[in-house]
Amino acid sequence: MVESSDPALPELAAALAPHTGTAQVIGLTGSPGVGKSTTTTELVRSLRAQRKRVGVLAVDPSSPFTGGAILGDRVRMQDHATDPGVYIRSMSSRGQLGGLAAATPQAVRVLEGAGCEVILVETVGVGQAEVEIASLADTTVVVLAPGLGDAIQAAKAGILEVGDLFVVNKADRAGADATYHDIQGMIGLADRAAGQWRPKVVRAIASRGEGIDEILAAIDQHHDWLVRHDELRRRREARAAAEIEAIVLAALRERLPAAVADQLPAVIAGTHDPYAAAAAILAELGLTTHMS
Amino acid sequence: MVESSDPALPELAAALAPHTGTAQVIGLTGSPGVGKSTTTTELVRSLRAQRKRVGVLAVDPSSPFTGGAILGDRVRMQDHATDPGVYIRSMSSRGQLGGLAAATPQAVRVLEGAGCEVILVETVGVGQAEVEIASLADTTVVVLAPGLGDAIQAAKAGILEVGDLFVVNKADRAGADATYHDIQGMIGLADRAAGQWRPKVVRAIASRGEGIDEILAAIDQHHDWLVRHDELRRRREARAAAEIEAIVLAALRERLPAAVADQLPAVIAGTHDPYAAAAAILAELGLTTHMS
Repeated sequence: MVESSDPALPELAAALAPHTGTAQVIGLTGSPGVGKSTTTTELVRSLRAQRKRVGVLAVDPSSPFTGGAILGDRVRMQDHATDPGVYIRSMSSRGQLGGLAAATPQAVRVLEGAGCEVILVETVGVGQAEVEIASLADTTVVVLAPGLGDAIQAAKAGILEVGDLFVVNKADRAGADATYHDIQGMIGLADRAAGQWRPKVVRAIASRGEGIDEILAAIDQHHDWLVRHDELRRRREARAAAEIEAIVLAALRERLPAAVADQLPAVIAGTHDPYAAAAAILAELGLTTHMS
Repeated sequence: MVESSDPALPELAAALAPHTGTAQVIGLTGSPGVGKSTTTTELVRSLRAQRKRVGVLAVDPSSPFTGGAILGDRVRMQDHATDPGVYIRSMSSRGQLGGLAAATPQAVRVLEGAGCEVILVETVGVGQAEVEIASLADTTVVVLAPGLGDAIQAAKAGILEVGDLFVVNKADRAGADATYHDIQGMIGLADRAAGQWRPKVVRAIASRGEGIDEILAAIDQHHDWLVRHDELRRRREARAAAEIEAIVLAALRERLPAAVADQLPAVIAGTHDPYAAAAAILAELGLTTHMS
């Protein structure tokens, strides 16, 4: 129902509301090829050894035109396919009312309502998708790998700003030490107010299960810090606000194409500019802004 | 003025409107480290040899929190820094009224107004940013490199759907042939309606200037196809529509935080769900949707 924006979704959301807000939500992001899926699979294995009920949402922020998440790299997750304590779902953000920003938190609520204690949200990330994951998760884990672009590229992609924890995966490969020290150096140089969380860096070889317990320990450390600093409440408020905003904007976006089509010929002809067209549409909606 | 969302921007936009719509807009995207900047620099060199006036917008869709595009990889572009026929600008989409979707087309208009005949828009792309580039450009060039994630990862990131032209850069490296054939294979398998453009694949070693003329030839071929099929007009209409929509939504987004804050306590407490909160906000704006 969440994925298809079922008309009964508001009803579902209302019924779920009292049963949510308790699960620990962990975001995993990173460039294609760094080993996110493998890391997720191994995290699930460790969490299951602790007897925790686990939900996994693999969110594909792309494929907006034809949709359809490619599940090739989900194969490893088949390890957990018959475990009733694990729920795994690939989601494409295509066609969601509110996109990734609205559908993912809603899916998280469903998993919470179903009794998942830990929810892993995995997404390919550069730019916007990462930011959305960071606003969704209690703890955001950025997975890196040596040789997949330099640290400067990492910074460029904004990951330094979203990560609470960095995992240098494939730590047995050439260049892993350089990646580790680059990230440590960048964390050292970053502006941070006193009392702010200083991101941790952990080495791992997820394909062999190495470093997984260290990742979970660092996640727990961050979670404790969030609770102690009342930051968990603040993050969850921000998450709810982003979700509401996304739903509102999606509803507005639905009504726009017709209004925009009316303005288009004049803009194409160059007799009208896009700002004037936008102002006309806002006036039609009964709204004025500082632009008009 | 465009970058700082100057209050006089609508006025600027109105003055520019009659002088726009003539430049060829080429988007370049791809994962970090594939050699986008080098490719752009060499394309500029070839276009200058043809005596064309060129504008380059290097758009950084990330760094939404602290902003500031990192210019490390722009160093090569210094080759063109003293050429009055080339204008180069790095833009961060942070804080734009309407984000990348509104600011970039507006910047394109400025460069068109200034007489640029070809405008290259370069962006790090996975997901949303790429889609926006695809909707902005006449021709979208996706740059790939061997060893930076498999072809299946490329498909996952949605690039197959946005690219009119694929460049396998670093074609002298191990795995380049495999990348070339993977992409060719995926293009062969993709659903395409009769008469639709079949994306080209070109090999290049941009750092040595090899393959650059082939890229430009393929871009021209695509441009001719667009004109012949009346697709150029359709793409530009879609671009203007997306721009107007982005401005409208940005203006609406400005007014949302206060309304959302009112709804937040009940949602956090679990007595209200996000959809109900969104419906209440829409009602307050005087709008109703199928949700309410």
